[in-house]
Amino acid sequence: MDVSIGQVFISEVVGTAILLLLGVGVVANVVLPKNKGFASGWIVISFGWGLAVFAGVYAAWRSGAHLNPAVTFGIIANGQDEFVPGIAVNAVNTLVYLGGEMLGAFIGAVLAFAAYKKHFDEEAPAADKLAVFATGPAIRSIGWNFVTEVIGTFVLVFVILQFGNTPTEIGPLAVALLVVAIGLSLGGPTGYAINPARDLGPRIAHALLPIKGKGSSDWSYSWVPVVAPIVGGVLAGLTATALA
Amino acid sequence: MDVSIGQVFISEVVGTAILLLLGVGVVANVVLPKNKGFASGWIVISFGWGLAVFAGVYAAWRSGAHLNPAVTFGIIANGQDEFVPGIAVNAVNTLVYLGGEMLGAFIGAVLAFAAYKKHFDEEAPAADKLAVFATGPAIRSIGWNFVTEVIGTFVLVFVILQFGNTPTEIGPLAVALLVVAIGLSLGGPTGYAINPARDLGPRIAHALLPIKGKGSSDWSYSWVPVVAPIVGGVLAGLTATALA
Amino acid sequence: MDVSIGQVFISEVVGTAILLLLGVGVVANVVLPKNKGFASGWIVISFGWGLAVFAGVYAAWRSGAHLNPAVTFGIIANGQDEFVPGIAVNAVNTLVYLGGEMLGAFIGAVLAFAAYKKHFDEEAPAADKLAVFATGPAIRSIGWNFVTEVIGTFVLVFVILQFGNTPTEIGPLAVALLVVAIGLSLGGPTGYAINPARDLGPRIAHALLPIKGKGSSDWSYSWVPVVAPIVGGVLAGLTATALA
Amino acid sequence: MDVSIGQVFISEVVGTAILLLLGVGVVANVVLPKNKGFASGWIVISFGWGLAVFAGVYAAWRSGAHLNPAVTFGIIANGQDEFVPGIAVNAVNTLVYLGGEMLGAFIGAVLAFAAYKKHFDEEAPAADKLAVFATGPAIRSIGWNFVTEVIGTFVLVFVILQFGNTPTEIGPLAVALLVVAIGLSLGGPTGYAINPARDLGPRIAHALLPIKGKGSSDWSYSWVPVVAPIVGGVLAGLTATALA
Repeated sequence: MDVSIGQVFISEVVGTAILLLLGVGVVANVVLPKNKGFASGWIVISFGWGLAVFAGVYAAWRSGAHLNPAVTFGIIANGQDEFVPGIAVNAVNTLVYLGGEMLGAFIGAVLAFAAYKKHFDEEAPAADKLAVFATGPAIRSIGWNFVTEVIGTFVLVFVILQFGNTPTEIGPLAVALLVVAIGLSLGGPTGYAINPARDLGPRIAHALLPIKGKGSSDWSYSWVPVVAPIVGGVLAGLTATALA
Repeated sequence: MDVSIGQVFISEVVGTAILLLLGVGVVANVVLPKNKGFASGWIVISFGWGLAVFAGVYAAWRSGAHLNPAVTFGIIANGQDEFVPGIAVNAVNTLVYLGGEMLGAFIGAVLAFAAYKKHFDEEAPAADKLAVFATGPAIRSIGWNFVTEVIGTFVLVFVILQFGNTPTEIGPLAVALLVVAIGLSLGGPTGYAINPARDLGPRIAHALLPIKGKGSSDWSYSWVPVVAPIVGGVLAGLTATALA
Repeated sequence: MDVSIGQVFISEVVGTAILLLLGVGVVANVVLPKNKGFASGWIVISFGWGLAVFAGVYAAWRSGAHLNPAVTFGIIANGQDEFVPGIAVNAVNTLVYLGGEMLGAFIGAVLAFAAYKKHFDEEAPAADKLAVFATGPAIRSIGWNFVTEVIGTFVLVFVILQFGNTPTEIGPLAVALLVVAIGLSLGGPTGYAINPARDLGPRIAHALLPIKGKGSSDWSYSWVPVVAPIVGGVLAGLTATALA
Repeated sequence: MDVSIGQVFISEVVGTAILLLLGVGVVANVVLPKNKGFASGWIVISFGWGLAVFAGVYAAWRSGAHLNPAVTFGIIANGQDEFVPGIAVNAVNTLVYLGGEMLGAFIGAVLAFAAYKKHFDEEAPAADKLAVFATGPAIRSIGWNFVTEVIGTFVLVFVILQFGNTPTEIGPLAVALLVVAIGLSLGGPTGYAINPARDLGPRIAHALLPIKGKGSSDWSYSWVPVVAPIVGGVLAGLTATALA
């Protein structure tokens, strides 16, 4: 009952789509006018994203539920032989993971747009409409924003790599609570992308979708939440190996 | 120790009654005047409904705890042979599930009315008193409201159908957290019925109960949170089969 | 390694003391002036009491962690033979449980008073200082307040009696989340005593402790959160038996 | 596959660094200007610290994840023979634990400073900038502040020592929720250090780091969150032994 590489692709697409549908959704709920969860605060954002991961991980069980290029690169840097049983760590399979993650993230953002269509039609600042899709820094400072994203992703990938070592490992819930933790604790300065697909996929959706009153997709910042999480994930993989 | 169809009926009645007692209760607590939880926000609503499911699932363990026609139809669309061991998927048994869910939902709403009787007696907008029982859209647009409910229910039923595939499956807690996730992330536009019984049962209770100062039960909208969740559940069951 | 009745007593004292220390503590934190958690709302109250149960249940593992006369009476009404292996359900052992629960609740309230001593010394309405210790209705109506407490306790004890029936039973966490659920959903009208010891023990502490600026201990209401939870617990035990 | 004492040291450094990175981080997010979680309240603080422990415990699985001198002393007072299999309870190993905890706490605080650098550069009261790192009393009263910290730490260490006694022990999650509980319920008066390393390590970081506009590190209070938690932890260890 080994998984095929095609199943891995579909699994990552579906799981990342659910992650982004729910993650983009919670920001829409809090940020866009007239929503029942409007202005309900950071606790809603943090639990919303964490539980979005929870749902996505169950949906992507076949492929080990990376849902995040930083996790994929972290596993590679950790020196593992297989992503899941039967799927070797090599260039082709890595591209399948990355492609599935990116496509899923885009699809999830489009679905969230559909779920919140009438609220996107309301008057709201263009920056808020972008914030539903992509992260942006509270204080723009490329260097320090980069540092914040590296640190947040390092914690994510490093702790995930430790989960199997405790007898009470609780799988999808543990990942979810870890993401809640990072949101609460390290999300303040940059909105914690900690996942290149989470940021780039919806940003592309923002650029392509016919969103009423939308503004720039802020491409000048867009490489930070792509590159910094990969750096953080690779550092986490290497550190986990060094300490093993 | 197989379950009888009569036990299935009672189990679904009891479980759905507890779900609606707690679910209607949390909205009453937040919306009705003078409550200790008055205006305590979306985090309370979302965890309240999620943990209402948690309690209801334990109470309905004998019947597999559907508590929701969208789940029942999703299981049918998924092509399963039995609802629980000894209870075949057929028309009669399906009706028993649906009947138990509807009756339980009605009973739960009546019990919540009793628990909050003095607060229903207070002056409050008629729309708020209806909102305690039944969902309504933040922005009325039947088409988009329908889409939102389909998407929300799809996530619910699709992820539930994946739970058994991970070794760390955590049962009632996983369903509860999934419902919290959907509330936080997709509840903004329509109040996330994602369950025909959850909406229709209490709406009937609203129509029948002697609620002081009540207004319309908004029957023109009432078919959306019935039909859309069934569509979402069936799509989820078919998708889960296609990906299996 | 059976437990002795003396160990049962100590276990219930310790567990109920921790429950009330944390439960009274969270109300003090939210209600008394100058606290870091001042006015932090119903989500804090509900999780605070739920997790107070969580801690108390671990501490009272030897005795099965009733911590609540309504649970003790519910188990009796359910027709069980033993409270825990080696401790028969009989009048003497029942009194040991009840005595331990009451003593523990009193001790916990005193410890919470010590932890918050300087905040009790601040100026605050006498009603708020009582509210830290004992429950009171939002709208005083003995009949309906009684109904609310019966319903809340019924849910508590009935669902607890179902926990053992699911393979994913998660012990102290399940009880904790159930108490969070009841707080969020049924706590609005009366502040959810749902436990005679939780209300009466701290009310006695309020009467005896040298609390600056304290007023009445509201004895006229005090029988409601004692009698109603027992009624709810017994009804739950009988119902669980009838459905078994 | 026994652990070496060097691995214990590294494990405690890494785990405590993650604990403090996330713990200091959540306070920075809530307290420092322009953060996305600014002023998001006590629920965010309490879950932030609790889930910081969650992540730290996974990271420090090799050494049993003390992360806290009060836990180390509590285990000693409890009379255990080994900290983890192969690491005897003796003076040298105790110092390794304490040293790892202190060093990790310092490193974590420095990392949190880096993650929030631009927000520390903003204008804010010097007291708020200190509050990100170290605890301080809401009402200064050394005696009662000491009592509060003793009680909080007693609950922490005593309940941790009971975790192994229930079949549903859930490891890192249980510790995390216990810390959430203590924060919600006993954090009001002193900000719940309940851990000498958690307070002293970041306070030293505050004194050494080039924080814009910083004031005093409040050394006159600094011994309370060091000594009181050790007293609480030792009392908990002795009590657990007495009741065993």
